[in-house]
Amino acid sequence: MSTNFRTLALIGKYQSPDVAESVLTIARFLRERGLLVWIEQGTASSIGGAADFAAASYECIAAEADLAVVVGGDGTMLNTARRLVEHAVPLVGINLGRLGFLTDIARSDALARLDEIVAGRYTEEVRFMLDAEVLRGGVRVFHTLALNDVVVNKGELGRMIEFELSVDGEFVYTQRSDGMIVSSPTGSTAYALSSNGPILHPSVGGIALVPLCPHALTARPITLPDSCRIDIVLLPPQDARVHFDGQARFDLRAGDCVRVSRSPHSLRLLHPEGYSYFAMLREKLHWSAEPRHD
Amino acid sequence: MSTNFRTLALIGKYQSPDVAESVLTIARFLRERGLLVWIEQGTASSIGGAADFAAASYECIAAEADLAVVVGGDGTMLNTARRLVEHAVPLVGINLGRLGFLTDIARSDALARLDEIVAGRYTEEVRFMLDAEVLRGGVRVFHTLALNDVVVNKGELGRMIEFELSVDGEFVYTQRSDGMIVSSPTGSTAYALSSNGPILHPSVGGIALVPLCPHALTARPITLPDSCRIDIVLLPPQDARVHFDGQARFDLRAGDCVRVSRSPHSLRLLHPEGYSYFAMLREKLHWSAEPRHD
Amino acid sequence: MSTNFRTLALIGKYQSPDVAESVLTIARFLRERGLLVWIEQGTASSIGGAADFAAASYECIAAEADLAVVVGGDGTMLNTARRLVEHAVPLVGINLGRLGFLTDIARSDALARLDEIVAGRYTEEVRFMLDAEVLRGGVRVFHTLALNDVVVNKGELGRMIEFELSVDGEFVYTQRSDGMIVSSPTGSTAYALSSNGPILHPSVGGIALVPLCPHALTARPITLPDSCRIDIVLLPPQDARVHFDGQARFDLRAGDCVRVSRSPHSLRLLHPEGYSYFAMLREKLHWSAEPRHD
Amino acid sequence: MSTNFRTLALIGKYQSPDVAESVLTIARFLRERGLLVWIEQGTASSIGGAADFAAASYECIAAEADLAVVVGGDGTMLNTARRLVEHAVPLVGINLGRLGFLTDIARSDALARLDEIVAGRYTEEVRFMLDAEVLRGGVRVFHTLALNDVVVNKGELGRMIEFELSVDGEFVYTQRSDGMIVSSPTGSTAYALSSNGPILHPSVGGIALVPLCPHALTARPITLPDSCRIDIVLLPPQDARVHFDGQARFDLRAGDCVRVSRSPHSLRLLHPEGYSYFAMLREKLHWSAEPRHD
Repeated sequence: MSTNFRTLALIGKYQSPDVAESVLTIARFLRERGLLVWIEQGTASSIGGAADFAAASYECIAAEADLAVVVGGDGTMLNTARRLVEHAVPLVGINLGRLGFLTDIARSDALARLDEIVAGRYTEEVRFMLDAEVLRGGVRVFHTLALNDVVVNKGELGRMIEFELSVDGEFVYTQRSDGMIVSSPTGSTAYALSSNGPILHPSVGGIALVPLCPHALTARPITLPDSCRIDIVLLPPQDARVHFDGQARFDLRAGDCVRVSRSPHSLRLLHPEGYSYFAMLREKLHWSAEPRHD
Repeated sequence: MSTNFRTLALIGKYQSPDVAESVLTIARFLRERGLLVWIEQGTASSIGGAADFAAASYECIAAEADLAVVVGGDGTMLNTARRLVEHAVPLVGINLGRLGFLTDIARSDALARLDEIVAGRYTEEVRFMLDAEVLRGGVRVFHTLALNDVVVNKGELGRMIEFELSVDGEFVYTQRSDGMIVSSPTGSTAYALSSNGPILHPSVGGIALVPLCPHALTARPITLPDSCRIDIVLLPPQDARVHFDGQARFDLRAGDCVRVSRSPHSLRLLHPEGYSYFAMLREKLHWSAEPRHD
Repeated sequence: MSTNFRTLALIGKYQSPDVAESVLTIARFLRERGLLVWIEQGTASSIGGAADFAAASYECIAAEADLAVVVGGDGTMLNTARRLVEHAVPLVGINLGRLGFLTDIARSDALARLDEIVAGRYTEEVRFMLDAEVLRGGVRVFHTLALNDVVVNKGELGRMIEFELSVDGEFVYTQRSDGMIVSSPTGSTAYALSSNGPILHPSVGGIALVPLCPHALTARPITLPDSCRIDIVLLPPQDARVHFDGQARFDLRAGDCVRVSRSPHSLRLLHPEGYSYFAMLREKLHWSAEPRHD
Repeated sequence: MSTNFRTLALIGKYQSPDVAESVLTIARFLRERGLLVWIEQGTASSIGGAADFAAASYECIAAEADLAVVVGGDGTMLNTARRLVEHAVPLVGINLGRLGFLTDIARSDALARLDEIVAGRYTEEVRFMLDAEVLRGGVRVFHTLALNDVVVNKGELGRMIEFELSVDGEFVYTQRSDGMIVSSPTGSTAYALSSNGPILHPSVGGIALVPLCPHALTARPITLPDSCRIDIVLLPPQDARVHFDGQARFDLRAGDCVRVSRSPHSLRLLHPEGYSYFAMLREKLHWSAEPRHD
């Protein structure tokens, strides 16, 4: 199996002392393999000692890199995904702590697994992303992508909010709650799971709506087809906030509409050969792998 | 708008005193519209007084009818769907009590709505069905279809069971619980919802696995793509049962495999114009339709 | 049955246009019954036109009134309970909208029911309150009472918090979550219920701990005896807030301890004769009262 | 500290090959300590080789023993508790597998811990039991005690049942569901927890009602004071069963009333010094004991 990876970018978690050594070790290892290695410029200045390698902006990486290696945790991966997804740069995740849902290669295995991946021995998984915008008086005032979730929740005052949900322009219901999680399959094992949301296998073309502490006992999570457009319109009087992957946020006013749909762009996630989504769930969620126990 | 409905079959809930009058009234009404009207033979003998109309077997209806009108409740619809789906006869549901999820036309509206539907004014919805079989020593010992769900649960002794779950041949986990619901989107608002399962919009191509009183606190519902093959293998020592739409059932022995996948056959469900899935959910689940409440 | 009610205080929801007329109507009605009627001074200035009646401070009411009639909703009752409970003034709740859990007399029935109550025909219910304080460096920096709940949750940044729970000085666990609800039986049908907390009958001597969106799938609500002292210590780095009955709040810093125990003071809530806690639950939670349904 | 333990009984899980050796080892050890050691007669005949020790019936143990040592798992403890509780014989539990909620001494520690306990170094915990009876036409047709729970559930046909709940003679609601768990605090970490029931600390004087797959989305677990009498009356047409600690069961007919209240008898459970209920929960439920994790 041949491979087309020529230019690789390394992206590390910022302000994390562990990252520097790992990034440089990986960078040197990949250069020795004959690859052109860049270090994302914020990473480079955060870790120092990266003068041997070209520092590249996210824009540059998006335009030119064949593969981006993310060194950190799932948070770093979420951030990178939002920045690179429009250019379809495939990502690999190296985790410095406990393995994450997205960063599934342990630091101790990193060189061996990357060696295989750059040699073309990998499993590619496609994860769709959410396109989210805030409309105020019908005008877009904010726009971003999210890999995990778009979360509308109560704002600074901490009071329950009320909003109207519409799907493809059809009114669905009015809800009073602490908020609403709009989750992709990827996000279904993240925050949504803490709020009793359903796990969605990454191959399911669905978007889950998971209420946060709803006032009505009859509220339930619902999974919609990923072809639909979800509108959440905030009703007065409370303020609210919307969070994207738990990283970006925007303050909402009454009347604002948070509109979410599937992005045309999808994340390409590369895993070592033998990767199994179910094995990852078992590991992360502590599901029993034993045939019998007592 | 023209219509191709020429031969209609009426199927009523058995042993239900209310049904006779409704079935005959509808039968006469449709005959006056110039349609050929059959009454399913079990229905005919159950209601009596149907001598004016041809009595037809399910096989005959499956082969020849252009439309089947189901008079009863969701249970009657489930039963009819399993019997007619392989021939793609479209179904319409008339409910004699509280409206159901599938039988969404009230008795009082029945003639007016049927008049519209046979005139071609209707909304068609496609609901996929589950194909379920039981394998014993690798040999199929039972096979059926289900519209709502396939439920493996503890048998007569009432003791927790243990089983292995595999998806597309890959081991997923071993679970001790009261059982497992394998639910289609249609079934997601039925029994699965009572066990904290996620609602799946009928357009989502997913199958939900919902554990029944699982021993491990980490067990969660999961939605899989409808392209996958789900195997549940019963481990010794307990006996268990498998139920199909709560209507058919089969006694399981240790080692038996219950295999579920999406059936190639789909149910065609006709609704009056203006039907809305979300409106039905609001009505059935008592979701708030009001813009504001206190 | 004789009665000792001589001095009554009326307390109305502030800034609510409906309240004025109801308060004055009730005040005149009770004066005609020969009772000394005061109007809480904030209520008096909020409604205007109360010049015929003595305006009394909460302190004065606490010290002298034999009964306080609360006109508004459950929020007004919560506020009044915190202010008057140390003096054991019994409360009656008149609701201007949908009946509440605590304000169970409808406006239309108010005069008839109050007539009975002041004549001594009533049911008295005792509801215990929570005593809550915040300790910083071992020093109390905030103290209040709560009838429903003490809620520690994530602060302005909206990031998951981490805290240690101890009970009677014994370490119980460390939790990462959106927060924790510490609820009395009275609060168990309020916010705690939205987060899947258990309902506690008011006669149960228990305090419920209900996690908000916990990170670990094994977290569960737990009910502790009301004799215990509950300490929640915020761990760095996130900030957090603590809310009392959803009305008062205090900003927490890492290291702060929120300490909750049963207050020695209990609320005396008077209901019309024939009051039933279960009937109220059926009404408020839409439980089926019918012997049969379909 | 002196001790009054003179006569000890050993009770082992039946038909369990591991038990024989453990029981005999413990028996010899305790006899060497100068204690009079009996072996429960069913245990004696199940294990064989116990001819050196007096075989005693449960009745005899109940009347004469100062302490009973249970060797097996929680199931053996449940069974023993029901048989001995009326005579207040304190119990100690030795677990041969994974530690249980009730059998908290590991086999490897058994001799050392028993040595301490018979020397008077132990913690005594009191767990109340449920008194359960079935009334048919007002006449008691079954009666037993349960330490964990009384579970009314659907019978052989596997169809949802319907029943009326009354508390202290007052109608509470009618419910359609798979059944209802009536749980003591001890049972709250057993089957009830699998059905989203609340954990009740053993010192809480409460009985939890936990619905099993209720039809109505508004059904919720509720904890009642342990002073109340709970009546569950089965409505036609379905049959049902009632299970006691998952060990005894009784077939119900329509109209039967399952009546549950707190038994006047309480289980005395002895633990090694240093026993902690919260530590046991952490261990069994995999709660985080770490001050920090990632």
